[in-house]
Amino acid sequence: MEYETPLFFHVMEYADRAETDVIDMVSGNPDWKPPEALRTGLHEFADADPDRFQYPPSDGLIELRAEIADRRGVDIDQVVITNGAGEANYLAMARAMERNRGSEILLTEPVYPYYPGKTTMLGGTQRFVSTDEAGQLDPADVRAAASDETAAIVVNSPNNPTGAVYPEETVRELVAAAEAYDAILISDEVYDHFDLSGQFSSALGVDSDHRIVTNAFSKSLAITGFRVGYAIFPPELVANARSRHMLVNVAGSRPAQYAVLHALRETDPDYYRRNRELLRERVETFTDALDAAGAAYTTPQGAFYVMARFEGYPGTLANIEQLIDEIGVAGMPGDAFGDSRSDWLRFALVTPRVEEAAERLVQYFD
Amino acid sequence: MEYETPLFFHVMEYADRAETDVIDMVSGNPDWKPPEALRTGLHEFADADPDRFQYPPSDGLIELRAEIADRRGVDIDQVVITNGAGEANYLAMARAMERNRGSEILLTEPVYPYYPGKTTMLGGTQRFVSTDEAGQLDPADVRAAASDETAAIVVNSPNNPTGAVYPEETVRELVAAAEAYDAILISDEVYDHFDLSGQFSSALGVDSDHRIVTNAFSKSLAITGFRVGYAIFPPELVANARSRHMLVNVAGSRPAQYAVLHALRETDPDYYRRNRELLRERVETFTDALDAAGAAYTTPQGAFYVMARFEGYPGTLANIEQLIDEIGVAGMPGDAFGDSRSDWLRFALVTPRVEEAAERLVQYFD
Repeated sequence: MEYETPLFFHVMEYADRAETDVIDMVSGNPDWKPPEALRTGLHEFADADPDRFQYPPSDGLIELRAEIADRRGVDIDQVVITNGAGEANYLAMARAMERNRGSEILLTEPVYPYYPGKTTMLGGTQRFVSTDEAGQLDPADVRAAASDETAAIVVNSPNNPTGAVYPEETVRELVAAAEAYDAILISDEVYDHFDLSGQFSSALGVDSDHRIVTNAFSKSLAITGFRVGYAIFPPELVANARSRHMLVNVAGSRPAQYAVLHALRETDPDYYRRNRELLRERVETFTDALDAAGAAYTTPQGAFYVMARFEGYPGTLANIEQLIDEIGVAGMPGDAFGDSRSDWLRFALVTPRVEEAAERLVQYFD
Repeated sequence: MEYETPLFFHVMEYADRAETDVIDMVSGNPDWKPPEALRTGLHEFADADPDRFQYPPSDGLIELRAEIADRRGVDIDQVVITNGAGEANYLAMARAMERNRGSEILLTEPVYPYYPGKTTMLGGTQRFVSTDEAGQLDPADVRAAASDETAAIVVNSPNNPTGAVYPEETVRELVAAAEAYDAILISDEVYDHFDLSGQFSSALGVDSDHRIVTNAFSKSLAITGFRVGYAIFPPELVANARSRHMLVNVAGSRPAQYAVLHALRETDPDYYRRNRELLRERVETFTDALDAAGAAYTTPQGAFYVMARFEGYPGTLANIEQLIDEIGVAGMPGDAFGDSRSDWLRFALVTPRVEEAAERLVQYFD
């Protein structure tokens, strides 16, 4: 079996090797600070008794699961703490496949490249449903593509790479589509704290035994390297997912879970609001500069990314590397996300230098 | 698909719920201290710049991989840092299955229960090769059981649960058996620092493109909850394993990796020696008391466990629970490890109260 290794790491390595000053807009790594309580939590943990350094419960520290269950309004038994959203999505997709109601996974186009990678690894096949230019997904298109072969429908809102935020009606209809075909809607909501539109709607708002919600603290607490995420399963699906988690990872890393728990308890809501506002300002700055250059772009409703299109400069890996070499701006090739975005380049707004990056782009394409 | 969930967590929960004073000898959780440098490393990390809180390289911090490669005498490209030995074994077994040279996994009997669990999860079948009463494995038996269907041979030395340490000749012949059937020898060496016999021999000592070695810092640094392990692959097998690791977990947890790196660099060899001697003393204390009771037992050559047999008291879950309830000693049922040990109980020597535990057992079975 060969996997399609996501291009992220390749592009990041290429940018790291460049000898010029490169503005890194490749990956969704927040450049803002984690909450202070996260650091305090880690210090506390470092001084704990030796027995605290041993296996946490396989499905995560019980206080952390309780905190999440309480915030999300679900039963604690439905919550499995995972090694980031990456493992949460892997468990969710594997769990959907194991129901033996087909082995096809419906994905959106454009798509976050880890989803097709996971699908292939799990022995599934993939079918893509196109979104519109703004990245919105029409549930009628999902129903048209679904069949008895459909094991799962995987969606991501706020969306990477398009920035689309699906309204409540879309989410409700996606759950209904999953139910109609006895499939599982997997709703990856890792950017939920970065909804700039006020329209974000969690799939947890639709009661159903046909949806799994995945999330992580990677983005909301600015700690992509800690690897603390979670999945919320319907009661009848959770046992096997928990077993798979145990058989793959035994448990997640305890210092990280402890620090996240401490941060959740002690962090003021203002922390989240400030980072969201920071992102909103960066979107404005970056798109204003693109406007000035007459470039086409999408204005994100949420998440960290702006997709831009420059006349005669398609979103290939070669072109991304050329921008790194010639103007020191590192983005991601649009075609990494699907054919529909092959003319586009994706820029992650995770640097204070978005204005400078936009100016370099404008000057280059002038 | 239903998995056989390992019993460890069930027994630990049962022991936790008991209202009496229970001596916990269930799981391989060290009760001794982690090295001081591990704590220092975690404190250092807690104060690091925000960019250090973001994704590490998928296959692990490069300094940690270099440190491991250097100590183990392998190329850094062969090393993948994993979420503990659990993920390392999962990746190794999955990688062996993906070669499409058969889907049967050869396991020892008795066996560490996670191995058959992983085999089933990966869609493989299992065949068991019996060890002798001391837990030694005869490579001729392995060859007799192997066939074109054999994808992998999974061994563990020092062994959980028997305490057997395989001599160099056994290890060499196991690698040869894997080569003869174009299978992969997976050598789980997580207890390598707890060889009490001086006979331990790593499979890395036998140069071959047919063996994968797995390990972790869980036991050697007394941090089962940190989840930092590694697998060393032959060059031609590493790429796909790295992809699977990325698609399942994205990366391991960075604070834990950083703390482990710091601990490896700063910890005196005396730390490891002291813990090994502590374990040696506990083995003596516990087996002396069992001797006094006329119980049968195995003297471990390594690892943390003593298997004991009490006349007319087979190693069932019900009997383990009865010991928890009546004398406050929590072990593991022998039959969790295979039929050959169904008359036995396994006790992990990870408590300073081994003498008291032995006395309680002696009195109970007197």
